[in-house]
Amino acid sequence: MSQYFPTAEECGHHVIFGNISITTYAGKHLQISVVDLPADSVVEWHQHPHEQMGMLISGKAMFHIGDEVKEINPGELYLMPGNVPHKVVPIGGPAKAVDFFHPVRDDYR
Amino acid sequence: MSQYFPTAEECGHHVIFGNISITTYAGKHLQISVVDLPADSVVEWHQHPHEQMGMLISGKAMFHIGDEVKEINPGELYLMPGNVPHKVVPIGGPAKAVDFFHPVRDDYR
Repeated sequence: MSQYFPTAEECGHHVIFGNISITTYAGKHLQISVVDLPADSVVEWHQHPHEQMGMLISGKAMFHIGDEVKEINPGELYLMPGNVPHKVVPIGGPAKAVDFFHPVRDDYR
Repeated sequence: MSQYFPTAEECGHHVIFGNISITTYAGKHLQISVVDLPADSVVEWHQHPHEQMGMLISGKAMFHIGDEVKEINPGELYLMPGNVPHKVVPIGGPAKAVDFFHPVRDDYR
């Protein structure tokens, strides 16, 4: 087993907010979450003490963070500081994002 | 100015290892680096105390981490624990990756 190159089997697999699949992997301080958002999905308003940062990979989505709202396109970045509420809704079809957390979220392992 | 959605102008822009452009943005604990690797580029062996994790977005690249070597395709993940030497060489054309660091690298701001 590689120390540095996780296989799909070694990753965490979770379904969040009803129909959103995430593939996760944790180091010591960093955790990745690759997020597949179906067209009809909604990441409902939620918050956590962990800092979160990410990039949209494909599709398009409306990001609500604190009191700001922005339509995000592939390659665009977003930052959710700890304890700031956020919500994400894909626009016009499915979307894919890559998120990172610090510290590691135990519920996403 | 948005607190949560950095524009390209608000990101850091650096050239590393001669011809590799990186676009960076730092939160409090997390830093993103979007890496554009030209076909003839080489991320030479180096190491840092920061933990690094990432995903290849496009292209293909040979990743050397510690004593392991793996050809990485889009969507595949890699982890560079702190102080573990690593080297990256794109294969057959340009490649693009998204990397995250903890803690923030001041030299990448």
